[in-house]
Amino acid sequence: MRADERKRNQLRPIEIETEYVMHPEGSVLIKVGNTKVICNASVEDRVPPFMRGQGKGWITAEYAMLPRATDQRNIRESSKGKVSGRTMEIQRLIGRALRAVVDLDKIGERTVWVDCDVIQADGGTRTASITGAFVAVVLAFGKLFDKKVLKEMPIKDYLAATSVGVLPDGSEILDLCYEEDSKAHVDMNVVMTGNGEFVELQGTGEEATFSMSQLQNMLELAKIGMEEIITIQKEAIGSYTDQVDKAIASDKK
Amino acid sequence: MRADERKRNQLRPIEIETEYVMHPEGSVLIKVGNTKVICNASVEDRVPPFMRGQGKGWITAEYAMLPRATDQRNIRESSKGKVSGRTMEIQRLIGRALRAVVDLDKIGERTVWVDCDVIQADGGTRTASITGAFVAVVLAFGKLFDKKVLKEMPIKDYLAATSVGVLPDGSEILDLCYEEDSKAHVDMNVVMTGNGEFVELQGTGEEATFSMSQLQNMLELAKIGMEEIITIQKEAIGSYTDQVDKAIASDKK
Amino acid sequence: MRADERKRNQLRPIEIETEYVMHPEGSVLIKVGNTKVICNASVEDRVPPFMRGQGKGWITAEYAMLPRATDQRNIRESSKGKVSGRTMEIQRLIGRALRAVVDLDKIGERTVWVDCDVIQADGGTRTASITGAFVAVVLAFGKLFDKKVLKEMPIKDYLAATSVGVLPDGSEILDLCYEEDSKAHVDMNVVMTGNGEFVELQGTGEEATFSMSQLQNMLELAKIGMEEIITIQKEAIGSYTDQVDKAIASDKK
Amino acid sequence: MRADERKRNQLRPIEIETEYVMHPEGSVLIKVGNTKVICNASVEDRVPPFMRGQGKGWITAEYAMLPRATDQRNIRESSKGKVSGRTMEIQRLIGRALRAVVDLDKIGERTVWVDCDVIQADGGTRTASITGAFVAVVLAFGKLFDKKVLKEMPIKDYLAATSVGVLPDGSEILDLCYEEDSKAHVDMNVVMTGNGEFVELQGTGEEATFSMSQLQNMLELAKIGMEEIITIQKEAIGSYTDQVDKAIASDKK
Amino acid sequence: MRADERKRNQLRPIEIETEYVMHPEGSVLIKVGNTKVICNASVEDRVPPFMRGQGKGWITAEYAMLPRATDQRNIRESSKGKVSGRTMEIQRLIGRALRAVVDLDKIGERTVWVDCDVIQADGGTRTASITGAFVAVVLAFGKLFDKKVLKEMPIKDYLAATSVGVLPDGSEILDLCYEEDSKAHVDMNVVMTGNGEFVELQGTGEEATFSMSQLQNMLELAKIGMEEIITIQKEAIGSYTDQVDKAIASDKK
Amino acid sequence: MRADERKRNQLRPIEIETEYVMHPEGSVLIKVGNTKVICNASVEDRVPPFMRGQGKGWITAEYAMLPRATDQRNIRESSKGKVSGRTMEIQRLIGRALRAVVDLDKIGERTVWVDCDVIQADGGTRTASITGAFVAVVLAFGKLFDKKVLKEMPIKDYLAATSVGVLPDGSEILDLCYEEDSKAHVDMNVVMTGNGEFVELQGTGEEATFSMSQLQNMLELAKIGMEEIITIQKEAIGSYTDQVDKAIASDKK
Repeated sequence: MRADERKRNQLRPIEIETEYVMHPEGSVLIKVGNTKVICNASVEDRVPPFMRGQGKGWITAEYAMLPRATDQRNIRESSKGKVSGRTMEIQRLIGRALRAVVDLDKIGERTVWVDCDVIQADGGTRTASITGAFVAVVLAFGKLFDKKVLKEMPIKDYLAATSVGVLPDGSEILDLCYEEDSKAHVDMNVVMTGNGEFVELQGTGEEATFSMSQLQNMLELAKIGMEEIITIQKEAIGSYTDQVDKAIASDKK
Repeated sequence: MRADERKRNQLRPIEIETEYVMHPEGSVLIKVGNTKVICNASVEDRVPPFMRGQGKGWITAEYAMLPRATDQRNIRESSKGKVSGRTMEIQRLIGRALRAVVDLDKIGERTVWVDCDVIQADGGTRTASITGAFVAVVLAFGKLFDKKVLKEMPIKDYLAATSVGVLPDGSEILDLCYEEDSKAHVDMNVVMTGNGEFVELQGTGEEATFSMSQLQNMLELAKIGMEEIITIQKEAIGSYTDQVDKAIASDKK
Repeated sequence: MRADERKRNQLRPIEIETEYVMHPEGSVLIKVGNTKVICNASVEDRVPPFMRGQGKGWITAEYAMLPRATDQRNIRESSKGKVSGRTMEIQRLIGRALRAVVDLDKIGERTVWVDCDVIQADGGTRTASITGAFVAVVLAFGKLFDKKVLKEMPIKDYLAATSVGVLPDGSEILDLCYEEDSKAHVDMNVVMTGNGEFVELQGTGEEATFSMSQLQNMLELAKIGMEEIITIQKEAIGSYTDQVDKAIASDKK
Repeated sequence: MRADERKRNQLRPIEIETEYVMHPEGSVLIKVGNTKVICNASVEDRVPPFMRGQGKGWITAEYAMLPRATDQRNIRESSKGKVSGRTMEIQRLIGRALRAVVDLDKIGERTVWVDCDVIQADGGTRTASITGAFVAVVLAFGKLFDKKVLKEMPIKDYLAATSVGVLPDGSEILDLCYEEDSKAHVDMNVVMTGNGEFVELQGTGEEATFSMSQLQNMLELAKIGMEEIITIQKEAIGSYTDQVDKAIASDKK
Repeated sequence: MRADERKRNQLRPIEIETEYVMHPEGSVLIKVGNTKVICNASVEDRVPPFMRGQGKGWITAEYAMLPRATDQRNIRESSKGKVSGRTMEIQRLIGRALRAVVDLDKIGERTVWVDCDVIQADGGTRTASITGAFVAVVLAFGKLFDKKVLKEMPIKDYLAATSVGVLPDGSEILDLCYEEDSKAHVDMNVVMTGNGEFVELQGTGEEATFSMSQLQNMLELAKIGMEEIITIQKEAIGSYTDQVDKAIASDKK
Repeated sequence: MRADERKRNQLRPIEIETEYVMHPEGSVLIKVGNTKVICNASVEDRVPPFMRGQGKGWITAEYAMLPRATDQRNIRESSKGKVSGRTMEIQRLIGRALRAVVDLDKIGERTVWVDCDVIQADGGTRTASITGAFVAVVLAFGKLFDKKVLKEMPIKDYLAATSVGVLPDGSEILDLCYEEDSKAHVDMNVVMTGNGEFVELQGTGEEATFSMSQLQNMLELAKIGMEEIITIQKEAIGSYTDQVDKAIASDKK
């Protein structure tokens, strides 16, 4: 039995509120248990210099936490004048994951800026960010599709993320909250597509190691979680689901 | 008649949601029309080096906007590696205003960090921040009072802020939204106490000037707004209002 | 009676030495009591990117202090690698004030850089900077007018600044020196035009507040000071005064 | 057949030259094919502030490339004034990996600084850094052991790293050179211990995804490579191998 | 004949105005032709961390130019957020030169901060800074001597600097103004003591070289200039000259 | 007799290994005693903005040390976020020295980036860098000459550097190692051409001074060293020596 009485293979409750902020093309507030992240997708009509003239687009992500999203207040990165290694690692991960399922050739010379701002943190902020960001991006594309700026949804597959880990007693668990995460011997972030392929796999034994069989157990749990999460994403995407499914089907051919 | 059909002396609807984020000692989400700001007050058990050993506390504020709080996405100040002049000006203002009504001698060697993070901007973010921050700070002190860390509420008066301005047609208005603010010839931020004294007055004619009578008309409007705002603050402060009123009464003696 | 034996409504002696540095288009050394500021105006034949192609000009200001302009040596902002909030606030104020009285449409696509460098500080450095900067800017325009680069003086009104405040004994005073400033309960900077309109009004009660009647008394004092200052500015501007007056008269029509 | 005629499961030639630089406690030059990295381990007699008074040590790593280690010259990070996200990611990975196999309780309040400087790059610089860094750290501990500063080797297991990947034709390969890496659909870095457990697993499909069976094939290849690499590390460690083996055996009990 | 009608071995007129700024312990304005530098010496009652507990003092220098000290306006180093290589080179030179003639053992654990701020530049700003800084430092020590904080003047010798160079026609000249400096094939800065020894010698052929005989001719000129400069310094030092001469005589024994 | 048993006028053993790193156009590892520096010359087909359109090229240098090139580990300049004054001084010196002997008109609009990275330091790193950099630059030009990108070697003379100094006992010595350097009263870096002219002369008495006769003795020693060094450079340059000699002869005409 886990701290919050969940089963080993049980996700925390997930809610995705859409149109959360009024200005961005796509905006959601995702809640995974007590973790809350605002994911905004902004579309800009140009690409960074290194991509100009190729007729294709770009997606990039930024991640930040409010200073008091955590139990102890953190100094703002703007005050420190630099972005921490942890932040950079996370925003590179989010951007890479989204680029794996978005068809950049189909969005023209546009940049999608994805901003993931953690309002309240209780473990799993980077995976919640990816899950929410995918929905925000789809909604932003939906808006462009409705305006006929895009002829089809430039999506190659669904995308969601969760964490899995190994507790000190050796048991594998799904979707670690902060308390579990701080104790776990192994912490693994898994990013998967709707058809069950891996996009990113990052497993770390901080002052510990893990075996092949533990790896397999963790990946089983991740797969279970992923299916549930994608169901919730589809609800949030709402009426665009059909267009997304059509685009995915056409990409698989 | 104004863009949003308000009267010249009419505030936008104000809502203050308390206990918005779970970790900070005091936390509110304040909505002033479409402007939304999270105000978190964090209490740290030490003061900055220049104040040590004096037996009194300190309050300081930080202010930031989500990149897409505005119509155009702004580059994060953490990415730019420096805080803009506008941000500095605002956070200095918020801190100064709060220090005018908090009795720093009564909080011991503690620092209150006030973080105002604008989620959505539609004009008046700095005045909304001050209004919300005051409530967050009172709630944080309330928590310390309940735990008997503080013996009384260290509050000398209520504190609220609003903006007034002069439109191109020469009419003075209360509580400018973004559309009005971008056109106004004069923009003035007024920070006042519960008993109608000024804490801070900042009036600017950007490529324009204003006369003494315009100044007086604007200050009239500010006074009207302030009374309404303080009524709303009292509701948000709820059961701590009695303790606050008692502290104010004792300070005035 | 004040520390330096002045009356409540008495300015410190003001001197403005012109052509102080040889390279800038306009250059003055202004002395207000012991406060000494070099104000240089440099004209550059282009505008910042955000203004290109509009056929109008721009004025921007920078402010700094020599490390030992004050009693205690300050660390250089270039060594710290960043400009302080106080500096930013002041240079934004100076630029905004000048833009209120310069007709940017009449200077073409040019930028006027105003550098205010405080050589010696004894209170009132920001208001002395504005007063001196106005003269430096007029002299720079005078040089362009003499060379027939400008057809008329692009000036809409005179511009000067001073400070007023409230001492702990409740009395309002004009033009605070450092010793007065450090004790005052209220400190207000007033920027006015030659015809007595406000350009900027910034009043602050640091750990104190002020009433409407105190505000009015302070503004009275400011008005008295302003007239004297503008007389001194006119002497410094010398033979260009006629052209300036002509331009102002034509603007008021 | 691969570009350099290697088999799918074949490593590039690896050489580890010890005592490469004269000042550090441990210093090696590791060559993995054309990739060359200087790994220096420096021991400092104190720990960072957050670890003081706990009686245990710390290991941290830094990673950099000479500007012309690559085909195109890169701007120095010292000139840019900030460390890139890629660099931060790599140095965090190296530090974490080493901490998994070093017994920090046994080194006292000391910090081991590991500097990995890439002299020449041809793919796999981060995995070569980890492999070389482990040897440099063991040699540094060996020196402390010889001087009787340490009573035993504070090593819990061997540590080595390599990369595996999937080529566009779908075949899995071991130890990617730069040319292969730039084409691969999947790139995975694997850090393992001497007894075949995972320390870190980072698999990324850049604009691609990978299946469970591809994952398993890649991990097979990684395991084959790891055994060879550890044999080469043991030769470099030379006479300290006995002490290391003894320490590992005692830790497993 | 030179541009300004000077002879090859003739200095520009030099003036040293003392007590120029009121706050610093020592303050001079030095004018060398059109070059004008404010040199302030500030005494702080502690030394930097690396010197604590040795019972001796430290001297360090900072150098800056007002943005419009030159013909073209330069961007402030505080705005750029970093100090240029040229500035660093100059401030290191000034500090090193002063440390060669000040007896650090005799000033106790104090730091002398020397700030050289160029108000107007016309060549030779670094040598004018050294010449002026020496006077400012002596005046600061004089003040401490008068207050009996120091028992003797901690000066080992006089110190002055000038430039010499080779013009395109091959002739050597003394004390280059900006126009000469920008054309010269060789530029050499010479820092000497009162008894004719070298403290620093920096000769540079920018896209040119120079022979041993040219070097000797330049050093002859430098020696001539130095004697004149030291005479002017002595006048500025005024009544402290006796104490300085006594200290120098006692040091030579 | 010196610490390492050298005579006063004796250089340390010098070795120059060419083609040390595979990517740069020119690459050497220079060893001067225990000092080891990698000098890479990279040719880029464009010049910095301030030189565009003039039809000529540019050479610039960067210098760095590995953190543990010295006895105590230094913090990386990339971590500190800024380049030290010492580093800037050295890289400006290297660039200036190379520009004195390279005919920038003959290389077209190209930039040569010279990177000097100190692997191991034992005194004289800046002079070793210049000596090695000259060879790397010649080799890079040789490669362009072979490819017929350049029609002749753009070299006006050989270039080498060494240090001389004065020991506490008053004796002058050639080529100081670190131990000597840290004790010396005078340290002088001399950069000379193949025909015995000076390019740069930087002599410093840190807390000491030096006389004209000491200067002459030091310059004698420098001349002796320089001849030996240039002989070693010629061996490293190998088959390009003829082309270099031809270019020098043609330049002298």
